[in-house]
Amino acid sequence: MPPFDVPEGDPFGPHNLPYGVFSLNDPPSPPSPGTHPEHTTERAAERTSERANSRTPERATERATERTVGVRLGDHVLDAGAAALALGSPYAGLLARPTLNPLLAAGRTAWSDVRRALTAWVTVPAHRETLAPHLHPLSEVTLHLPFEVADYVDFYASENHARNVGQIFRPDAADSLTPNWKHLPIGYHGRSGTVVVSGTEVVRPSGQRKPPTDAVPVFGPSVRLDIEAEVGFVVGAPSPMGTPVPLSAFRDHVFGLCLLNDWSARDIQAWEYVPLGPFLGKSFATSVSAWITPLDALTDAQVAPPSRTHPLLPYLDDSEDEPGGYDLRISVAINGHIVSEPPFSTMYWTAAQQLAQMTVNGASLRTGDLYGSGTVSGQPDSERGSLLELTWNGRDTLTLPDGERTFLEDGDEVTMTAWAPGPDGTRVGLGEVTGRITPAP
Amino acid sequence: MPPFDVPEGDPFGPHNLPYGVFSLNDPPSPPSPGTHPEHTTERAAERTSERANSRTPERATERATERTVGVRLGDHVLDAGAAALALGSPYAGLLARPTLNPLLAAGRTAWSDVRRALTAWVTVPAHRETLAPHLHPLSEVTLHLPFEVADYVDFYASENHARNVGQIFRPDAADSLTPNWKHLPIGYHGRSGTVVVSGTEVVRPSGQRKPPTDAVPVFGPSVRLDIEAEVGFVVGAPSPMGTPVPLSAFRDHVFGLCLLNDWSARDIQAWEYVPLGPFLGKSFATSVSAWITPLDALTDAQVAPPSRTHPLLPYLDDSEDEPGGYDLRISVAINGHIVSEPPFSTMYWTAAQQLAQMTVNGASLRTGDLYGSGTVSGQPDSERGSLLELTWNGRDTLTLPDGERTFLEDGDEVTMTAWAPGPDGTRVGLGEVTGRITPAP
Repeated sequence: MPPFDVPEGDPFGPHNLPYGVFSLNDPPSPPSPGTHPEHTTERAAERTSERANSRTPERATERATERTVGVRLGDHVLDAGAAALALGSPYAGLLARPTLNPLLAAGRTAWSDVRRALTAWVTVPAHRETLAPHLHPLSEVTLHLPFEVADYVDFYASENHARNVGQIFRPDAADSLTPNWKHLPIGYHGRSGTVVVSGTEVVRPSGQRKPPTDAVPVFGPSVRLDIEAEVGFVVGAPSPMGTPVPLSAFRDHVFGLCLLNDWSARDIQAWEYVPLGPFLGKSFATSVSAWITPLDALTDAQVAPPSRTHPLLPYLDDSEDEPGGYDLRISVAINGHIVSEPPFSTMYWTAAQQLAQMTVNGASLRTGDLYGSGTVSGQPDSERGSLLELTWNGRDTLTLPDGERTFLEDGDEVTMTAWAPGPDGTRVGLGEVTGRITPAP
Repeated sequence: MPPFDVPEGDPFGPHNLPYGVFSLNDPPSPPSPGTHPEHTTERAAERTSERANSRTPERATERATERTVGVRLGDHVLDAGAAALALGSPYAGLLARPTLNPLLAAGRTAWSDVRRALTAWVTVPAHRETLAPHLHPLSEVTLHLPFEVADYVDFYASENHARNVGQIFRPDAADSLTPNWKHLPIGYHGRSGTVVVSGTEVVRPSGQRKPPTDAVPVFGPSVRLDIEAEVGFVVGAPSPMGTPVPLSAFRDHVFGLCLLNDWSARDIQAWEYVPLGPFLGKSFATSVSAWITPLDALTDAQVAPPSRTHPLLPYLDDSEDEPGGYDLRISVAINGHIVSEPPFSTMYWTAAQQLAQMTVNGASLRTGDLYGSGTVSGQPDSERGSLLELTWNGRDTLTLPDGERTFLEDGDEVTMTAWAPGPDGTRVGLGEVTGRITPAP
């Protein structure tokens, strides 16, 4: 029997161990003989201090005194901080914290060391009795935004997606890609303050839109509310201003990845985005999965990106590097009905190239920087990562069991899941990202 | 004699009192009888805790144990936290801190109360002896980034600037403004992690650019490095997701303003910005003044914005509100030579309209959010706020005492200053924002 009762083949087995931040749904029971009250006090003090200094008091005060780092194991979460304290581990200072930021900031060597320790804790039978009180069913915890987002950048790295969008919005253009597309990964900054954890309801945004038949814009709730299936990369180790991060240093800075839904109000975006890019069409909400999968869990999923059709400048040339793509199989469901299965392996630009691009001008990195891959779309219709593409901007309809869709209706719940090849034929599950649309006020 | 020897007519007199964060250049001397050592210990503990939790460890560790909130008075800075402690003020908890964030988060009533208290401290002669040890010459302190920047947004609100840019880049267009320009304040998100305090050197960014004569892009240091003279608005009180902030609530959320230089690499920007907007052309550095001027110091500078040429949707219609413009007279100097005097009163969109726009889709506000007005350009050539406009994209040259310029050269130092009308014929000075260009590595 595997330790902690994870079934064979579970995509969240001991080969995965993604990180999150959780709190118990019920008040904690009195300390049992196996716990250390003084550590509880110490952690509570840390949390109080963290809360006082937080940039986001309204978020941090909600349940803040109960939050701590957890590691997912099957359908349970291990209280990693409590486990570290119970085992006398030196990593308690990184894990008995209300956010992943201290672990993220600790750097690549620490990431590997902590992962090695966690793997031992959940696989060595001798630890089972000590750790059992710190293993909680997922049904009994609340998952929180696992790190404080510093800057949020969104890229545009799927050639299929970019060509679809180009054909939809610029049908008369000689090339569906803009002239720069094959020379650099195009990106822009988004709003980090509205990055929310999976499960957070998304209020339908209102704003200006200008229907082609109207002379002036009208105001109201978006009527073309969309999704974008993306993968988000989480920066751990910072870099100084003025110093680009080369392709080869990607793994030194990026800790892991998550699923990301870049909610998009297409009608608001279409009216506002020339000449300075998307703004309110995106900034109302961006959802991320509650679990951050460390890159160390995904070494079996590394694949070569598509072959390049244009020569690359040296700072983006990865032809001599380890494979920069990741074979992540994404599923997108609306109200439980799968509408698309975008393959991340088709992305033209890799996460390492995006990091090199983002910093080539000397921009610094901070712990907690998050960057989205851009919408993931495969070549077939069934692999398109947005409703814009799936319905060709509303020309076609999707047929769901509960009716037809062009864009999202109030009450719709969108859920993205994914898995990647793991060691020895296993699967590495990514945490889901889900969100339900509530009506505009 | 005015208290603390501020000369009559000084733009940083007791009518101004902008806030900053400073540290003493020399180690502090031993406590004198007028100080309270226990408070020093308490503050040091707070700072240590703040540092441990900071999102920006590389910034926060530099001198972090010495930083505290200061208020400028003439050519001195009052250690506001030490002053509060010495006088037994209840505001010590907001002022004896290494960042303005706690004060920003405290909200409008607290802002007014603290300002009223500070005004009394620096004007009532009885306090002079108590406060004298806490007043330091500006020459003996280092000024730091005064708050932790949450999200950074940049707008595009000067009609003169937008028309100039339109004529330069789209000479064949029927209208130099895009169709949306008069209907909403156009904005986009920038990189908050590279917002730096005045005085920070700016490394010339490298990146891709595609000269029109080349078939493919080339890589290298920017050859069209530019400035943008802007005013930055600092959000204090947060707002929840899903709830727009109306025009009337502007003063409840925005604490004050600063000068802002939105450094821009025009060649990098031109190649990258279609279709998702500026990214690396801007993200290498944004400089802000070290002093944040509270809006309460600028009530005499409020002016009506230019008359609107297009009807506005209700959420942007400020025709019944108090005047939303600010009469700020900006000067831009290169190596000490004034090259432009942009008048902020000419801005078409006000800061209140920008805040309403930024949140109309339900995007939340966080303490420390910063938004730039966009380049300030008046109608005459002498009032243009960027070299792009001053030299018409390099067609013309500026003649400085040390040679001709189209764009910035290595070693150039750009300094922006400003003042506004204050009470009784006084001037309210804004803190300068300055930065020197260093060569690309």
